Parts: sequence; C-alpha cells; structure tokens
Amino acid sequence: MAHNTDVKADASAPPVTRILAEFVAMHPSRGWSDDVDAEARRTFQNWLGCAIGAARHPTAEAALAAVAELEPPPQATVLGRSERVDIANAAFVNGVMSHTFDFDDTHLKTIIHPAGPVASAALAVAERAGSSGRELVDAVVLGIDVACRVGNAIYPEHYDRGWHITGSTGMLGAAAACARLLRLSKEQTVMALGIAASQPIGVREQFGTMTKPFHPGAAARAGLMSALLARHGYTASMRALEAPRGLMQTYSTKCAWNEIDDALGRRFEISFNTYKPFACGIVIHPSIDGCSQLAAAHRLTADDIERIDLVVHPLVLELTGKRSPRTGLEAKFSVYHACAAGILFGRAGEAEFADALVTRPDVMALRDRVHATIDPAIDEAAADVTIACRDGRRLHLRVEHALGSLERPMSNADLARKFHGLVDPILGDARASALIEACGDLGAAADVRVLTSLARA
Amino acid sequence: MAHNTDVKADASAPPVTRILAEFVAMHPSRGWSDDVDAEARRTFQNWLGCAIGAARHPTAEAALAAVAELEPPPQATVLGRSERVDIANAAFVNGVMSHTFDFDDTHLKTIIHPAGPVASAALAVAERAGSSGRELVDAVVLGIDVACRVGNAIYPEHYDRGWHITGSTGMLGAAAACARLLRLSKEQTVMALGIAASQPIGVREQFGTMTKPFHPGAAARAGLMSALLARHGYTASMRALEAPRGLMQTYSTKCAWNEIDDALGRRFEISFNTYKPFACGIVIHPSIDGCSQLAAAHRLTADDIERIDLVVHPLVLELTGKRSPRTGLEAKFSVYHACAAGILFGRAGEAEFADALVTRPDVMALRDRVHATIDPAIDEAAADVTIACRDGRRLHLRVEHALGSLERPMSNADLARKFHGLVDPILGDARASALIEACGDLGAAADVRVLTSLARA
Repeated sequence: MAHNTDVKADASAPPVTRILAEFVAMHPSRGWSDDVDAEARRTFQNWLGCAIGAARHPTAEAALAAVAELEPPPQATVLGRSERVDIANAAFVNGVMSHTFDFDDTHLKTIIHPAGPVASAALAVAERAGSSGRELVDAVVLGIDVACRVGNAIYPEHYDRGWHITGSTGMLGAAAACARLLRLSKEQTVMALGIAASQPIGVREQFGTMTKPFHPGAAARAGLMSALLARHGYTASMRALEAPRGLMQTYSTKCAWNEIDDALGRRFEISFNTYKPFACGIVIHPSIDGCSQLAAAHRLTADDIERIDLVVHPLVLELTGKRSPRTGLEAKFSVYHACAAGILFGRAGEAEFADALVTRPDVMALRDRVHATIDPAIDEAAADVTIACRDGRRLHLRVEHALGSLERPMSNADLARKFHGLVDPILGDARASALIEACGDLGAAADVRVLTSLARA
Repeated sequence: MAHNTDVKADASAPPVTRILAEFVAMHPSRGWSDDVDAEARRTFQNWLGCAIGAARHPTAEAALAAVAELEPPPQATVLGRSERVDIANAAFVNGVMSHTFDFDDTHLKTIIHPAGPVASAALAVAERAGSSGRELVDAVVLGIDVACRVGNAIYPEHYDRGWHITGSTGMLGAAAACARLLRLSKEQTVMALGIAASQPIGVREQFGTMTKPFHPGAAARAGLMSALLARHGYTASMRALEAPRGLMQTYSTKCAWNEIDDALGRRFEISFNTYKPFACGIVIHPSIDGCSQLAAAHRLTADDIERIDLVVHPLVLELTGKRSPRTGLEAKFSVYHACAAGILFGRAGEAEFADALVTRPDVMALRDRVHATIDPAIDEAAADVTIACRDGRRLHLRVEHALGSLERPMSNADLARKFHGLVDPILGDARASALIEACGDLGAAADVRVLTSLARA
C-alpha cells in the first residue's frame, strides 16, 4: 500500500458547494433580464425538438426496452424489509445497506469492498430471473474478479487521487455479474462493460456521510442497467476501458494493463477477500482481538480485571484515541471503548457501538481501566495486550495479525456469529440460522428465491 | 479553446474490455477450486448479513423513501412516444433522445450540451409535481448556470483528459434544477449537489456509439435522484465539490474556483448557449451556411449550378472529406453531401442525412459538383464559397461566422424551422406548431402538463 503523496490537493478552496446551493435555493424567480429568459425558452424548445425527433431512433428503442424491464415494479426483495421494488432499485438499496455500517468485506490489495456492488446487482437479477444458486455464485466470483482486476491495475494512484475505488470499479463488477446471469453473449458483454465504463461512482470526500454507502448501491444499479441496455442492443465503445480517452486512462495515471489478464481464470481475486469481525476502523482490530482472546481463554469478567495495557502503533491513538466517547459514532474512534466491549460482550459488532451501550456504567468503568502506549516499532497489524487481574495474574498476548486478516481469516463459526449479531435483531434467530444454511448450500439451490424469501421481513 | 496536449494517452493498451468480457461470458461454471467457491459463499453470506443488519438504519429509510417516490410508475412523459414511465426513467430516456442526433445545443465556452441533462430532469419533476411554467424556466436557467460554471472552472483540462463534460457536470445541473423545483432548502440543496458530486458520467471514447447520448440521460437521472434523496434527509459532504478529495480536484487538475461565483446571479451562462442549425459536425457549418445563403438569395435550383468551390480550413477535409458517402452516418462526414443538401433542401437537418437521401441521383449529381480547397490561413469558423452558374454568373460569399454561432445566433424563425424538421415526422405539423407556441408562452403556463400532453404520441 505505497501511496503517492504527490497527488495535489488544495485544502483552501472556497465553499463552492454551499455557494452554488444557496444561489439555486435563494435566487429570486425570474431574477434576470428578458434576454436571459428568452434564451431559456429557446434552449427548452430546441431541446424538446431534438428529443421528440429521436423518439423512434434505435437508440431510443433500446433505452426504452431496458427501462421496460423494470416494470411492473414489485420485482425484487429489499433485504430485511417487506417492500419489494424493481430490480434496479433493489440493487441500489441493498448495496447502500450492505455498506452502511462499513462492516462488510475488503479486498486488501485494493481496499475495494467488492460484494456491495457485485452481490447487490447479481441477487436482484437472479431473483427476478429465478436463477439457480450456482448461476448466482458464478456471477459473484466473476463480477468480483472484474472489479478487483481493474482495481489492481489502477491502485493506489486512482484511490490516492480521490476516488472511492469501491464505487469506481464496482459498476464494472456489477455489469459483469449481471451480464453473466442474463447469459449475454461475448459481444453483448463487451457492450455491458463498455456502458458501465461511463459511470464510475464516488469520491472519498463523502466518507463519514450517507453518500459513502451510496457508492456501492449506485454502482450496483449502474452495472445492472448497463447489462440490461446491452441485452437490448445498446452500444458502447469496444475499448471503453483501455482507449486513450477510455475510463482507465481518464481516471488513473497508473494503468498496469498486465494486471487484467495475469493468471486470468486461474487466480481469482475473491480468494483475497476478507471480512471485518469488528464494526470499526481496522487499525484497532488487533487490540480488540487480543483483549477478546484473553478474556475468552481465561473466562474473565469485568470484576476480574484491574487494568489493561496496550502497546500499539502510533496510528492507533492518532485515529482512535478518544478517551471518553459519548455516542456510538464517537465510540468507533475509541480504542478504549472497543477493547472494553470486546471483553464484556465477546464481540464488537454494530450492536456493541450502540449509543446506549457506550454510556452504560459497567462499560464506562472498564473502559477507564484500558491504557494505551504507542511504540513506533510495532507493526500496524499488531498489538501487545497485557491484562492485570485483581487476583495478581498478569495475562499477556501479542497479536501479530488480527482476526479477519488474510493471515487469520474469520472461520465459518466467526462469520456465523457475526451474521447473527446483524440479522437476529431484524429477522430473528431462527431465520438467521436458516439464511446461513441457505448461503452454505447456495451452489446447490435450484432457485435463489428460496433465499430471498427468507431474507424478507 | 486552448487544449492541453500534455495529457498522456497510451494508444497501445491491450484490448482489456474484450479480454474481461470474454472471460465473463465464457469461463465455465464453477471453473475454480473448492476454496474459491467456498470463499464466494462466505462473501455472499457476509454481504447478506451486513445488508439485513442495516435494514432499519436511517440511511436505508432515506434511500427507500426516495425510491418510493418513483411509484407508481406512470408518472412522466417519454417525449414523442405513448409510454409513460417513472420520473427517473423519463429523465433518462428523454436525455438520451435529446442528444441522439448530436443536434442539440452547445455552451461554447465549455462545449457542454447543457439542456440534455438539465431540461430532461427538470421537465420530469415538473410534470409530476404539476409545476408552473415559470418554475420550470427558473429551474432550467439555474441548473444550466450550475453545470456551466463548474465547467468553466475545469475546462479544458478536464475535457482533454477524457471526460465528456456534458455528463460529468450535467448531473450537478440536473440536481440543481430538481432541487429548485422540489423547493428544497439551502441545506437540502447542498446535499443534493453533494450526492450528485459522486456521480460524474461519461468518457469521450464513447463518441460514435449510443453511449454518447447515454451520458446526458444518465446525468439527468443521477441529478434527479440526488435531489429526491436530499429531500428525504440523505446526507453528503458539504464540501463534496471543492474539498481535496471532492469531485473537482479528483477529476480535474484545473480548478479555477473564481469561475464559480464570478458575477454569480448577474451573468447567466445560458446567455452563451447556441443551437445547431445543421445535424453534423460544427466544422462544416460555415460551408453549408454559405451554400444555403447563396442558393436562397439567388433562388438557385440544382440545374442552375455548374460548379461549387469552397475554400476551407484544413480541418474540414481532415474530418469531413468523404467524397462518396453511402449512408447517412457517412454523409455527416462529407462536406460535399452537406453542401449539396443545403442547396437542394434549404436545410441540413437530421432528415437531410437520411440513408435514402444520400444515394438519391439528384443529390449525388450535385454533390459531385462540389469542390473544396484547403487554406491554412482561413479561420476554422469561416468558409469562402463560390458558385459558378450555367448562365455564367459567379456568385461569391465569405462566411465569417456560421449561422448558429454566438455572433450569428439562430433566429426564432430558424429555431421554429428546425423544430418542425424534427417534430413533424413524429407528431405532425399542427402539434409541432402548438408546441412551439407552448414553449414561447412557457413562463406564463399555470401547469407544465399542458405542454407534456402535447408532446406525447
């Protein structure tokens, strides 16, 4: 992850977004000369004529045929809810939700979160088509391969420049997955990827707002629509990704073309996918992991513990050094809260960062007994944890790679525990268990709708 | 229009789009190890849990509320057709159609085609809301101002790098227009622009394919959805445009911030909008204009004409030197056909580039009498036309600025003639006339649906 610090950034820009927004919201109606107003009507009339004139053109027919596939709207499941919407909107909303907690998955070579755009688009198309589970799994593997290979070719320059790489490669993965599920020909698939290449989503400035999870959702939708358009004969450049004014050279100065077909069909990028065990920034995962492991191994309760000492990389306190968080969001930036939660609850999922929990007296009391020291010599991936017990024991663990890293992947049991933590509050424990089973058997399912019907509220 | 030739371009890139498409379309089902397949199911299950877990989060509620505004779908007119679709799809399809002939409008300072994204989004929202014509005109003026001001700040670097600036600024104009029509507050409008800032559309490699007109359509849709999301409390960065990792610095190295508020509210960019009189590349407009003017002034028929001599800038023959076009598309790259059509029909709209017309004997015969000579000293905007008549007259005209330029704007009569050429074949002459009248009176219309009902087939 060598980053290019040369990418220029001007932090002194005026508040352009606000200036334009205030102008749009506040400028008086017809607050301009008659000439301007006349030009507006001429512009409108000219636009209207151009649009009507093309109403029977093959371009219009293809666009309308793709749009017609979205009707009638109750087509696909919104996960965890009772609403059903058209497949494009299902892909969008499911993609948004899957990244809302920033708790999903990471292709560590590119920090792409690949399932958000790819699985969200694929499941919607598969549900509508009644695809088999095998077809869905195939589409997810291939779609993730496409997004991550493009990511490999442009990372890190593209990310450093400001793109949220999950959304700016995800529409290609989503298009690929949907093309596969719709059984598009090679030629149509070129077009699907080509149309998607005009729709990269997301800049990093949005981090911390709802528009961050918007990115995988919008990418899922864009990829899905690209595949539908291609199915109906809509055309794009056959070199939309690689041409001099194609996507990759337009949005990245690094284009390592060899990454596209290096061991293509032999090495699959999904093999490098990882899953977050803790619903917070990855930098404090080793500390949480160490605390949880010691507490579990020695069956510690809060009362057993005198003091917890962490030795960590300087970044940990720089990013997550908040001593006294008051809300769940603040707690995600507190190594103290996170470690206390790991010990008390044996996990640090989204629920353990709830507002109410952060201010619970027992949580606050244990949090205050956590102490952290920095050591520049310790690796970012590591943490050194010592728990001093009231009975005089000193328990020590050095975590070299946290749970959830490629070196120490989450086990299926870990993933099931995480799944229950997320799904039980929404659909109940029994449905969560049934869904885990359905995912495990997905490759054998005759129709993915057995799964989507379980995933609806 | 000084362009930066330093923007790097690697024309030797391998056929990445095709390589990936063939892999997606052809790789055998489950053509990988058991480990890869297991990882796919783990990826899917982890994604599913994250999505379900967020099903009641405010982010999901806001996204769903925006999507719910698209139901039930018969909401807005597809221009020139009988279908009615939801407002997002209407914005999309109308935006695609308006740019299909590449015959719409041009903000010459940035070569943005501003009405495509802005008017397409605005009309759909206005129709659904039953807005007044005044509100629609206001929204179009303000939306175009936003898109073109951002364009002014980043042009030409951004365009030279490969972005199709119509789609990559158009979503901001569309968001602004829709925010205005939906009467969003200042704060909500900041969010609408912010959400739109994550969705730039379009790269220039798509020119010559259906994905070029896709760009204004997709930008219209993206802007409209951004406004709907903002209306329902969806959040984005308040500095999404200008921050170091915001849109403008991410996709352009030129960011002339002063362009954003230079005479804001006093100078309106729509004043610099121009309309194409001829349905072909702008480089041959001076020649067509000269021929048409001479033929009209002297009431020439083909039989009167011995020979036509053009003296033109070298680019004219480089780009449009096709001597014997066989199709309408080829004819758009033939200054010979275009001038013959201008003389024979008094216009060179989309109909004059129809396949059947290009091979009509009288058109071909006149075309063969057109001769062009290059002169590097002549301006790109100019052409020198001499017509030698059979009766011995030599008629000469030097065009310094063609019809449709800022210096010689199309008159309202010119625009009406263009409108009839486009609309009569689709909706008939009477409806076209009624629409022209409705556009002229737009500012006074109590409800824009008087106009949309006329625009439906």
